[in-house]
Amino acid sequence: MPCFDTISSQDLARGAVLLGTGGGGDPHVGELFLRRQLQRGLQPRLMPLAELADEAFVVSVAGIGAPTVLVEHLLSEAALRHLLQQAEAFYARPIDALICAEVGGANAMLPLAAAALSGLPLVDADGIGRAFPHIDMTTFGIHGCSASPALFSDDLGNLARLSAVDNPSLELMVRALAASLGGSLYGVLYPLSGAQAKRFAVAGSITQALRIGRHIREARAGSADPVAGLVRFLDGLEPGRRARELFDGKVADVRHETRDGFHWGQVLLEPASGSGEAVLIDIQNEFLRARQGERVLAVVPDLLCLLDSESAEPLTAENLRYGMRVRLLAYAAPPCLLSEAALAVVGPARFGLDSPWRSFLADDQGRAPA
Amino acid sequence: MPCFDTISSQDLARGAVLLGTGGGGDPHVGELFLRRQLQRGLQPRLMPLAELADEAFVVSVAGIGAPTVLVEHLLSEAALRHLLQQAEAFYARPIDALICAEVGGANAMLPLAAAALSGLPLVDADGIGRAFPHIDMTTFGIHGCSASPALFSDDLGNLARLSAVDNPSLELMVRALAASLGGSLYGVLYPLSGAQAKRFAVAGSITQALRIGRHIREARAGSADPVAGLVRFLDGLEPGRRARELFDGKVADVRHETRDGFHWGQVLLEPASGSGEAVLIDIQNEFLRARQGERVLAVVPDLLCLLDSESAEPLTAENLRYGMRVRLLAYAAPPCLLSEAALAVVGPARFGLDSPWRSFLADDQGRAPA
Repeated sequence: MPCFDTISSQDLARGAVLLGTGGGGDPHVGELFLRRQLQRGLQPRLMPLAELADEAFVVSVAGIGAPTVLVEHLLSEAALRHLLQQAEAFYARPIDALICAEVGGANAMLPLAAAALSGLPLVDADGIGRAFPHIDMTTFGIHGCSASPALFSDDLGNLARLSAVDNPSLELMVRALAASLGGSLYGVLYPLSGAQAKRFAVAGSITQALRIGRHIREARAGSADPVAGLVRFLDGLEPGRRARELFDGKVADVRHETRDGFHWGQVLLEPASGSGEAVLIDIQNEFLRARQGERVLAVVPDLLCLLDSESAEPLTAENLRYGMRVRLLAYAAPPCLLSEAALAVVGPARFGLDSPWRSFLADDQGRAPA
Repeated sequence: MPCFDTISSQDLARGAVLLGTGGGGDPHVGELFLRRQLQRGLQPRLMPLAELADEAFVVSVAGIGAPTVLVEHLLSEAALRHLLQQAEAFYARPIDALICAEVGGANAMLPLAAAALSGLPLVDADGIGRAFPHIDMTTFGIHGCSASPALFSDDLGNLARLSAVDNPSLELMVRALAASLGGSLYGVLYPLSGAQAKRFAVAGSITQALRIGRHIREARAGSADPVAGLVRFLDGLEPGRRARELFDGKVADVRHETRDGFHWGQVLLEPASGSGEAVLIDIQNEFLRARQGERVLAVVPDLLCLLDSESAEPLTAENLRYGMRVRLLAYAAPPCLLSEAALAVVGPARFGLDSPWRSFLADDQGRAPA
């Protein structure tokens, strides 16, 4: 298990933005939060998923809402500690371990900071292997685990303890609460047994994010083209999960809107070469779909990532600006997200997209990845 | 204390609609609910406010949301019983008595039904002496009592236990939750000590509603003009609270909208005589303001009531239809709602109305009430 320091915190944040596919919140605040704990000598303990006891009590800690707003509503250490205390009181049992609901962006960093602060171990796993905008969009949810009872708090001290009849109802309730309280909340959700977590979680997510971040840092120091190097690295990282560079372009237009507790938008990329067809990316917190005219290049649950063309820095959707030089990367979803049952929860139709899921590799004829 | 039967239940419902000033929800469902308890021999106990022990634990039971929707989401006995059980578990102490948050419409009937069902006494008082659309708009709130911790449930079993930093924040949270769950919720709120209830509640509200309802029933059987009789009755009912008939007309236009967990609207009344200036009434759940051109006839917190012209039946805002013959009555607010502190919470500005509060009697020159 890694010992965290400033460099590995940055690595993790960078890897988490890539796996967050533009969403999950800017990890910078969570990174600062974690760094502060490290400075105080509080080291988060990362626990391999397999080591979790069957009867352990595991909960997720996550920020909920529009990433555009999450960075403006900072959670204090006292508020995070209070939230965990309230959770133990509400569940009427001590928490044995924390887990990331999603490994994207701030939602990878916050649980790690909570682990450092509370002394609870963080399981090296998450509930999705990427980031998704809805609470019910997790492997836990796909397998019938209830996200509630759950607690949500804002940065002012308003607290909601929710019991929902199903996960989509919890999502409706939390999203409405977030919108009513300024756009974002912090929560404790998905109370699971260790046995459930071991059966349903995506294992190794935290170390995967760390490795991706470390690769980017090292490639940037050495490689002539860090993006091409990253694509090769991802393409060989896990069996059955391929990666491809889909487009080299610049941001020609960005539309952002923070509404109903989400960050909505579209990004138009024009070819870097100056000629060729533009690419349009749809956003709901995360990058959902990339299209070139009518042709879908890639769509959820596959991961879409925008990287700075030169440095391979993964970019969050809310930080995109006109004129940025970017390269678009697709990384295959974890296989567990591609079953029929999983696609019913995290497939394109759930986002109102009329493109059925189709692998971005479907018409790949052995093209070079860059 | 009255013993309830079918007739007194109807009296109470009728009086509660009048005091609900168009809002508070249609009492018919609550009346049926109460009647069912009476048929089973369960009699609600009404307790005079003065008899409440200082150390008693008193809570309000209320429906929250748009009255247009409340009637479509019926609360089952099991759900109401479950809500009270959850409340005792959440507050970690037994409830000693129930009180109406507001005496208007369904929110007068529901607590009485809950009292019959649970065996808990209902205090003969309420937190406003009328109905208001916002949770924080009560005499409890005006005097600094917190409406939370509070619980809210829908008819499907979704449950939210909320702790808010202040009453307006609770209102925002509950309203958003209600809107996300179909428009209405049922809740337990304003946990008070007996001492607080005795100090801040409006005493005698339930018996007042009963007396008003009984008067209408009896006047209808006897009087040539039940509306004129009712105005005289109200005018003499409590010292310092006058009543006037403001307008005799017919509904020429109604605009309804159910949005953001409220029922919004405007009603245009044309003179029954066929000539003269029309009256426009603004609605947010309740009737807020009546204007004749630029001239404000009456405005919150004074009570505005629309009555059927012939039968003096009080009408709820959501049931108004084109062509109805109606008479507009103003009834002075309880004096405790007219202090500067009270007007800051329940005055016209809180509803976005640009008319400062001014008694409807201000330019009364001893005109005959009809």
